[in-house]
Amino acid sequence: MPVHLRRDLDKLKRKMLSFGAAVEENAQLSIKALRDFDTSIAQRVIDRDEDINRDEVEIEEECLKILALHQPVAVDLRFVVTVLKVNSDLERIADFSVNDSKRVRTLAKHPKVALPRELMQIAEKAVAMVNAALDCLVDQDAVRARGVCAADDAVDDLQRKLYDIILDEIRKDPDNAAQWMQVFSMVRYFERMGDYATNIAEDVIYLVEGEVIRHKEQGM
Amino acid sequence: MPVHLRRDLDKLKRKMLSFGAAVEENAQLSIKALRDFDTSIAQRVIDRDEDINRDEVEIEEECLKILALHQPVAVDLRFVVTVLKVNSDLERIADFSVNDSKRVRTLAKHPKVALPRELMQIAEKAVAMVNAALDCLVDQDAVRARGVCAADDAVDDLQRKLYDIILDEIRKDPDNAAQWMQVFSMVRYFERMGDYATNIAEDVIYLVEGEVIRHKEQGM
Repeated sequence: MPVHLRRDLDKLKRKMLSFGAAVEENAQLSIKALRDFDTSIAQRVIDRDEDINRDEVEIEEECLKILALHQPVAVDLRFVVTVLKVNSDLERIADFSVNDSKRVRTLAKHPKVALPRELMQIAEKAVAMVNAALDCLVDQDAVRARGVCAADDAVDDLQRKLYDIILDEIRKDPDNAAQWMQVFSMVRYFERMGDYATNIAEDVIYLVEGEVIRHKEQGM
Repeated sequence: MPVHLRRDLDKLKRKMLSFGAAVEENAQLSIKALRDFDTSIAQRVIDRDEDINRDEVEIEEECLKILALHQPVAVDLRFVVTVLKVNSDLERIADFSVNDSKRVRTLAKHPKVALPRELMQIAEKAVAMVNAALDCLVDQDAVRARGVCAADDAVDDLQRKLYDIILDEIRKDPDNAAQWMQVFSMVRYFERMGDYATNIAEDVIYLVEGEVIRHKEQGM
């Protein structure tokens, strides 16, 4: 491989990893904001998103530059295309962290309701999936990536459970329906976060094995 | 441009357009299912998604083949990368049509509630944005694409209005909260559909002007 291509791919990989770390950190912060009901942390998550958006655009431009200048083939081409896709998914994951933090901010303005413990569970599981998906990308580990895809079932189960819990709370106490609608939105964001982590894991499998597994049944 | 590249790009463009048409048609069908409260149309939307998923994978493979075989540069490279991104966004738009149709199916099992006319409005506006974004892509029309981005504000306004309406209905009639939660989910799906149409329009602007406008304020 030409030395310039190697150098640019290494640079892209480093940039991608530090981007992933920033997205992961913001997801962790958004959980902390929720757990401690801390609006100043929620605000930090929202403010940090500007840097994340800028990084996403820069990484995409980097990918296009590499494609245009070096015209990579085989595994190098797959790597650049994978980065293009993972990049866009990570930015959307970061948006979910922002949305969740906005819900924390809104909830803080209303009379407090007791959040079900399943809400922290789905949050933690979704963020753990994001972490694991990024680790798989770093290690190019398709076996573990399949584990990430399988973990999404637990997140979906929690979502269904939370739907029933929220509906029950609303029926018992319709005056606090606004808060429960906010909680319902949060649940959706975490569930979507899990979906995007699954997408990243699928992209890693494609990168390693050259096989598109999207839309196939996920077995272990 | 080499004749083989031209031929493969034309083929990709045709495939992309017919994919866009299928996604658009399913979005229209999902509105029809909602308007007429027709679960057999809702089921058709769900069933047709299998073809859409298959098409998405095929288009992505086509893009990779072109990148690997022809190593396109400049506007051809931008076109292929745009198709890669639009392809993935269209598939997600199709998922929202499926999700909306599933909600119609669920609603049909519960006592009927009078759906607010704003629900049809947000549905129609979101699907119109998808149509317009695809037209912009076909015509490579960046001016109209900016109009699509601006149209998203009306969808967001409707979403806020619907949130208030739904909250009000739940408070008045908590026994029917389950139906209203389903309606709330639908509203979210249509709002997300508008977001993805905006993404496509932004990608068209990038394709035509070479400028990434994501995360910037949208002026007209």
